[in-house]
Amino acid sequence: MRERDLLEHIYRQNPTLGELVSIPPGDDMGGLLLDGRNVLVTVDQLAQDVHFSLDRATLAQVGRKAITRNLSDVAAMAALPLGAVAAGSLPDTWSTEQADELFDAMRATAQAYRCPLVGGDISIWHGPLILTVTILAHPAGLGPILRGGSKPGDHVYVTGRLGGSLHTVGGPTRGRTHHLDFEPRIDLARALAERLGPGLHAMIDLSDGLGVDAGHLARMARLTAEIAVDRLPAGPAAEQAGRIDGLPAWKHALGDGEDYELCFTTDPHAALPDEMLGVPITRVGRMRPASPGEAAVVVLGPDGKPLDVGDLGWEHRSP
Amino acid sequence: MRERDLLEHIYRQNPTLGELVSIPPGDDMGGLLLDGRNVLVTVDQLAQDVHFSLDRATLAQVGRKAITRNLSDVAAMAALPLGAVAAGSLPDTWSTEQADELFDAMRATAQAYRCPLVGGDISIWHGPLILTVTILAHPAGLGPILRGGSKPGDHVYVTGRLGGSLHTVGGPTRGRTHHLDFEPRIDLARALAERLGPGLHAMIDLSDGLGVDAGHLARMARLTAEIAVDRLPAGPAAEQAGRIDGLPAWKHALGDGEDYELCFTTDPHAALPDEMLGVPITRVGRMRPASPGEAAVVVLGPDGKPLDVGDLGWEHRSP
Repeated sequence: MRERDLLEHIYRQNPTLGELVSIPPGDDMGGLLLDGRNVLVTVDQLAQDVHFSLDRATLAQVGRKAITRNLSDVAAMAALPLGAVAAGSLPDTWSTEQADELFDAMRATAQAYRCPLVGGDISIWHGPLILTVTILAHPAGLGPILRGGSKPGDHVYVTGRLGGSLHTVGGPTRGRTHHLDFEPRIDLARALAERLGPGLHAMIDLSDGLGVDAGHLARMARLTAEIAVDRLPAGPAAEQAGRIDGLPAWKHALGDGEDYELCFTTDPHAALPDEMLGVPITRVGRMRPASPGEAAVVVLGPDGKPLDVGDLGWEHRSP
Repeated sequence: MRERDLLEHIYRQNPTLGELVSIPPGDDMGGLLLDGRNVLVTVDQLAQDVHFSLDRATLAQVGRKAITRNLSDVAAMAALPLGAVAAGSLPDTWSTEQADELFDAMRATAQAYRCPLVGGDISIWHGPLILTVTILAHPAGLGPILRGGSKPGDHVYVTGRLGGSLHTVGGPTRGRTHHLDFEPRIDLARALAERLGPGLHAMIDLSDGLGVDAGHLARMARLTAEIAVDRLPAGPAAEQAGRIDGLPAWKHALGDGEDYELCFTTDPHAALPDEMLGVPITRVGRMRPASPGEAAVVVLGPDGKPLDVGDLGWEHRSP
């Protein structure tokens, strides 16, 4: 059983969903029409020892991430959060204090991003922690920016510095670990959508790694994304991870998941500064027509020739 | 760690949620304001071997119930469904066909109730099946009917026949099992809200059993619910369950969970027929001022004197 086969089976039913569905499954958020207004909704699960380990993260960090991970999907639509509900299956070995620490972090994070938690469902069970958060959002006059709107010739951009998200910068037990501490790019996405207007063609948040997620943008527009390896904004965590495993930092920037930055495509005539709201904005490539049988993402070396990135393990996911 | 303590800790924060929250945690659905319109949202989890067993239910039945259970919350608000998202953690031992059977049942059920599934999150893990469904709804001109609106003197009603929901009527392996096959009372709730107008004061769906759920209505209005035992509409499943365990059918009608019928309170001058849309409507009691230290629900015998229902195990939950 592969996740991808299950999703494709689900997506095949999209045409039957009806006219009140404005955005069917397969985008960063689904969309429903309420009196002609878009209500956006996304759900994500965090499972202990699948998505996080309580050996390496505090309950407060896990609670924060359960909210921010969904808010990154809101950012990918250039939308604003409206509110959230959460469901948790808690281990029966926990104390009330542990549960309160988790829920207090979720509530405080939700409040900080103006996304109040208005409901939930708690089960206590003989299993690991499972947290499922659903966030509602609304376009508030901008977007929503979908994944599929890229055109041939578009420029491909990313925000922030990429790679090494699971790596703790500043030592293994202290310091920043990006996949726990990241800021969802809600304000930046709004600023981009406002500045670029109709020149902002498509957007996605980077959860599976640029190689995979740029592939989603390309496939949904039936294009190929060309990424220039010497443009990749590898961050210090990518460098540090590379010193440990011997891989060049660009491979971490391209292949590592959980950046929770934005990848977006624009009209090639649109201009952007190198930085907005204090966050680097980097043009990493372009979209071009796809050749039959070609991968959705092609990585070009400094000499302009395609690099073999088969060792990153993501090419098989973007045929 | 008790679920109730965790919930009370959460509810204490309700005043901080802000003015865009129209219904805070603690009701059948939460409410958020989008351009002045109510968007209602509820989430529920189903965990294998906690909420269902795959020895006694097919995957199609589990998928159906994951949707209908949430739709029962929509009915409790007299609202209409707008759409849904689902998250599933699937056992890594499953085949693709098993996953498809589950998701197809979820999708077909959602479509049948005009509640399209517009997003999801699938994980494959080394654990049992966990399904989390979030449903969005809107009042569509009626309600929303909250839990806390009862007044002293109100009549207390229930829909349908109660009790024995987990019991299979017609033999242990065939026939109807109410907790899997029930119809969420969306149309009936709309008809009640339309007919009663402002005379419909409060409503809840019966998931934990009438004794517990009528207690929620009473507590939220700081009243006591008096239930007359000889008015309880015990169904054939309650009778059958009683023949097995020796309890009178009314104890099953009062104590068993998962009826997914409605319990509601009305102005005592409002009149209702014995049946609406083919479903029995039964007046089972009234709301009166609470005496200090009294339970939220008092059960009166045929002689009008309180019965001891301590053996039902729910009184401790409604202090």
